[in-house]
Formats: sequence, C-alpha cells, structure tokens
Amino acid sequence: MVSLSMEIELTKTKKQKPAPNELGFGKYYTDHMFMMDYDNPEEGWHNPRIIPYQPISLDPAAKVFHYGQTVFEGMKAYRTSDERILLFRPQKNFKRLNLSNDRIDIPQIDEEFALEALKQLIQIDQDWIPTEKGTSLYIRPFIIATEASLGASTSTSYQFIIILSPVGSYYPEGIKPVRIYVESEYVRAVKGGTGMAKTAGNYASGLKAHSGVAGSGFAQVLWLDGIERKYIEEVGSMNVFFKINGKVVTPALTGSILDGVTRNSILQLLKHWNIPTEERLISIDELYEAYTNGTLEESFGTGTAAVISPIGELQWQDKKMIINEGNTGELSARLYNALTGIQNGEQEDVLDWMVEVK
Amino acid sequence: MVSLSMEIELTKTKKQKPAPNELGFGKYYTDHMFMMDYDNPEEGWHNPRIIPYQPISLDPAAKVFHYGQTVFEGMKAYRTSDERILLFRPQKNFKRLNLSNDRIDIPQIDEEFALEALKQLIQIDQDWIPTEKGTSLYIRPFIIATEASLGASTSTSYQFIIILSPVGSYYPEGIKPVRIYVESEYVRAVKGGTGMAKTAGNYASGLKAHSGVAGSGFAQVLWLDGIERKYIEEVGSMNVFFKINGKVVTPALTGSILDGVTRNSILQLLKHWNIPTEERLISIDELYEAYTNGTLEESFGTGTAAVISPIGELQWQDKKMIINEGNTGELSARLYNALTGIQNGEQEDVLDWMVEVK
Repeated sequence: MVSLSMEIELTKTKKQKPAPNELGFGKYYTDHMFMMDYDNPEEGWHNPRIIPYQPISLDPAAKVFHYGQTVFEGMKAYRTSDERILLFRPQKNFKRLNLSNDRIDIPQIDEEFALEALKQLIQIDQDWIPTEKGTSLYIRPFIIATEASLGASTSTSYQFIIILSPVGSYYPEGIKPVRIYVESEYVRAVKGGTGMAKTAGNYASGLKAHSGVAGSGFAQVLWLDGIERKYIEEVGSMNVFFKINGKVVTPALTGSILDGVTRNSILQLLKHWNIPTEERLISIDELYEAYTNGTLEESFGTGTAAVISPIGELQWQDKKMIINEGNTGELSARLYNALTGIQNGEQEDVLDWMVEVK
Repeated sequence: MVSLSMEIELTKTKKQKPAPNELGFGKYYTDHMFMMDYDNPEEGWHNPRIIPYQPISLDPAAKVFHYGQTVFEGMKAYRTSDERILLFRPQKNFKRLNLSNDRIDIPQIDEEFALEALKQLIQIDQDWIPTEKGTSLYIRPFIIATEASLGASTSTSYQFIIILSPVGSYYPEGIKPVRIYVESEYVRAVKGGTGMAKTAGNYASGLKAHSGVAGSGFAQVLWLDGIERKYIEEVGSMNVFFKINGKVVTPALTGSILDGVTRNSILQLLKHWNIPTEERLISIDELYEAYTNGTLEESFGTGTAAVISPIGELQWQDKKMIINEGNTGELSARLYNALTGIQNGEQEDVLDWMVEVK
C-alpha cells in the first residue's frame, strides 16, 4: 500500500457556493481535488496530493485525447440530518475502477488508499455537501493517460484525479417516469469490447443516439445487444429492470453491460424483501409479449445519479408500450424510497452498505 | 465558410530539432499548433489561430476526459528533393473527420478552411519537415469536447487542434514483414458502434489485446468481427489486404472498419495497374483454407504511419500461417515503392493525389 502521507495545499480563495435550487447535475465543483501520478512501473502511483480545484494542463499529444485511455467512477456522499457524512458502498466503486483499469490496460490503483484519500478530500470540502432533500455530493474519480506520444499503444504515464460536485435532487418535482426509445440503429457495446468497463468510449458511442431522440421527448434510448440486436442491455447510461408477473427481471452481466452498484443493491434489497429476481437474457420480443398479455407491470432504470428512474413508456419501432399507465410503479417507488432513505441516513442500513467519513 | 483571417502568434523560442535518426513516431512536435473554438451553434467554429506549441488547459470535468467525445485524423506532409512540400490526399482526411464528427455528435468543420489552415501551419513550421528517405511530417488534427459538465450528454463546446510531428522512417532497415496474432477474445468494434469513425474509444478497446501479445513477439493483432467472430476486419490500427490466387482481397466497409485513405489509394492503384481487387467479407476460415491450399500469396496492412506493413506470419489459435516464406511479397514491395514514391515526389502522381503547400 502506498504511504498515506499526502501533501495538502488548501485554496486561498474559496469559491462561492451555488444556491441549492441551482445545483443541477455536475455543473459546480468544490474547492479542492485529489491528484496522484504514475510515471513508471518501478515507482508506481506516487505523489498523492490534495490541491485547489484547478485546470489540468496536458501536452496536446497526451494519449487520453487521441486513444481514449481513461476510466472513471461515479458515487455519492450524503449529509445526514444528524450531521454525519455517509458514502454509499465506495469499496465497490474502487474495485470496479480496477476492473475498468484492467480492461483499458491502466495500472491498478490501491483501492484502500483511494478510499482514504477520498475521505480526506471530502472532509476538507465537507461544507460543499448540500443538505436539502434529494441533494448529495457527487464524486468523480477518473484516470487519464498523459504520455505525450502519438503511437497507438498503452501509455507509460497517468494521472488519477478525484473531483467533487454538489448535485441537486434528480426529481425536484417528485419522482417521475420517462419516455424511452428502443434503439435499433446504434449499438453501445458488444461482448469482447469495453461495455463492462466504465470507460469514455462507451459513452461517446451513445451520444448521437441520445441526441437523435431527445428532440422527440425521449429521455434516453434502450440499448439492444450488438450481436442479435434483440436482447435488452441498458437504458441510456443506466442498468434496467422489468417487473413481469411479480418477478423482477434484469439483464444478466454478459460482458457488454456495466455491473452497476445500484443494480447490485436493488437485487440485494429485493432478495432481502423476498421478492423474486432473475438475472438473465431478456429479449425485446419477450418484453413486448409481456406488455401485450398484461404481465409487464413496472420498469425502471438504475444508476448513481437518479438511483431509480421509472420508465413510463417504451417506443419500439412503431409499437408503443405504456407501462403502469405511465405512472411510477409501486415497487419502483418503494425501492427509490428505501435506497435513498438508507443513503441519506433516514432509514436503517439493513445491508451494511454505508461508510461514514469521520 | 469561416473567414480565412487568422491570428498568428509566432514562438519566441524555437525548439531544437531532433537528429533525423532519433525521430521515431509521434515523439517530437513542432514549434506551433493550430487551434479553433466552438462554444455555441450561433457563432459556430471561431477564433482560428496559430500559436506556439503549448499545453492544453482544461477543466477536470471537461467531457473529453469522461465521455470520450473526441475524433482525430492522421496524414503526412513530404519534402521533395526539389524542395516542394506535398500533402497526400488531405481532402479525404478532412472529409473523414466530418464523418467521424457526425458519428460522435460533434459539429461539422469547414473542410476547405481546415486545409487552408493546415497549409499555413505547415508553412510556418516547414523547417521541421525532415528530408531523409522515408521521413515525413506527421499531421494530427483532432477535436475534443471541452464543456466542464458531468452530464453524459453531447458537449456544448469544443476545440479543434492540429499538431505536427516530424517522424522517422517506419523501416529504417528496409521494409520488413511482421508477425500478427489473430485475436479471438477481444473485439475492436461492431456494426452500429463507432468502428467506422476515427475516435478514441476504438483505440482504447485494442490496447490490452496489443499489450497481451506484444511480449510474444507479435507486432499487432488481427481483429475479427464482433458478431460472428469469423470475418476479418483490421490489423492493429491498419486496414488489411490479402493476395489470394492473383486477386487482391480486402474486407468490405461494413460499418465497423475504417475507410482508410491508404486502403482506398491501394485499391485505386491496383485498378490502375489492372490487378484484380475484391472488397468483400473474408473469413479467417477462408484465409486458412487459402493458406493450406497454397493460394495465399501475400498479406499486408495499410495505414498512414507504415503505408504498407507486410505480414509474414499469422497465428490463429494453434495454427501458424507463414506467408510468402516470411518475406515481403513482390506486390507488397511494388505497392510500397509506388505509393511512397508518389508521396515523396519521386514518382509521377498518376492519380492526381498530391496537394502542394505553396
């Protein structure tokens, strides 16, 4: 493990904090950031430091710009009503960061050290954690390849950075279902590719599909698999769930979809509640059949930003599926309340997920 | 078209130029770079400028770091023996840049203006064009998403940058065949994805596959398609050709492979020479059959960096194909000599490819 000694340089000019109702998502950043370097295998990751939030200065030939050698994570810290600071399953995020590192050929980080560094950063910027209902401090760890070389090969140097962003409630007017377009032209990822990693290229691939349907009032696209173009994979950048005939079904982790922390938590919570779950292949045809025979009861996306995003409508070619009359389902609401309640400390942490920043 | 007026700021301290035998590929950069901004659709691309080569300063939340919204191009300028400066089919590169832009949801650039800007940049840095045999000035135009926002959506702002790098001969000891490993675990791209665009994520996906085989003496991997895992796509980051029974076969542009400028030029040159060509699906099984029945005569990769890279050996699972006894084929050598001869101005530009920088 890298030594915990860390250089800390505090800012001399603290920024003004935005009003809680102006937060939005990922628009404002706190006063400090964490940074650490990698220049060669002998030295490994070194020079961990907390510094004032500032621009990154890179040679125009830095590999991250050209060959996308970069991975990231997303998680949240919450301020409880009794003034504690809680992180939601952060170990899983740093573990997944290393899985992504492995796929993108980036050196492994020390997960324990990363968590300690994050805690220290949050403590320094704790005044930035908003307290209004539904708000939180979004955490974005990411690693970028910095070698200034145009050879299309693995970088020899990297920076590991953590930035923090106070974010508003995803549902300022209450949880609300969205309309989703089933994408049939573009593909997000394929087995053997990078779909299971949290890496930039997966998201770049989806931008055009999203822009293409946003004008028609769709919040996201539903991705089908790249091979048979029939199995459901993800919705936008979230995992997806369907309640069919009392069972909760979600696509299995086949190699092209992300092993979401919220997905995993939902499955655990449902098992804890003795509600049957299935992780398996589910085709768009099966879904449409369940819709027509009346057994498609609810659907929702899951991710760190929204936690639960109910799906009220799915447009598949010329077929429209209105789910639960376009309203938030009972189970979707129960899961949202339970998960956010555990996260903000208002409900008992029955599955031992929360990690306190002391 | 954007006005041609361009702000030019010349460097006060010219860098020392590396010795010709130390150039390598993409290791050194010239004294200046081109830069242009995009901040909103009304203004479009604006503020074109040539400035001293310098680091790019970006907010840590810039979308290029997180969502890979970036595209690039690669081309070369040559200094002829009579002191002219020639570009090889640059219009095709800027046209492809716009095709990549379209796929990655980046605003279109003015191709004509980009070429004029490039010419101006090359003129300013023309002393950097190396003159030794096989050397050239590699040109890297690229666009990065700069909006400082963590929402996984299309950026509102961009920078378009061109950097120049003097590069050494790809074959300092003469053109030489490489060993290639047929990849069966990882996939580069799939139809519906971004494989036909020159964008970072395609390259990120390949880094681990390349690192995995480099230790065993393989120069690159041969990519198979992501759906059936049998049709040949590309080799490393090059297009690939096979001479089978007198015909030259290359994978068709099915949507997951790059429409290479060198690939296109090779096809044109072969037609000009009345050598039969085929752009079609070609499976690894067909290739192995051609190998066993003795009709696989030559194979080579094509790309801007190497121009022609002869393949002397293909390792597919436990099968080894030694092509042309591991030597550079006659046609491979003829194509290499013809293409590089046209590029460096020593041979007649029979197909009207070269553009002079005056």
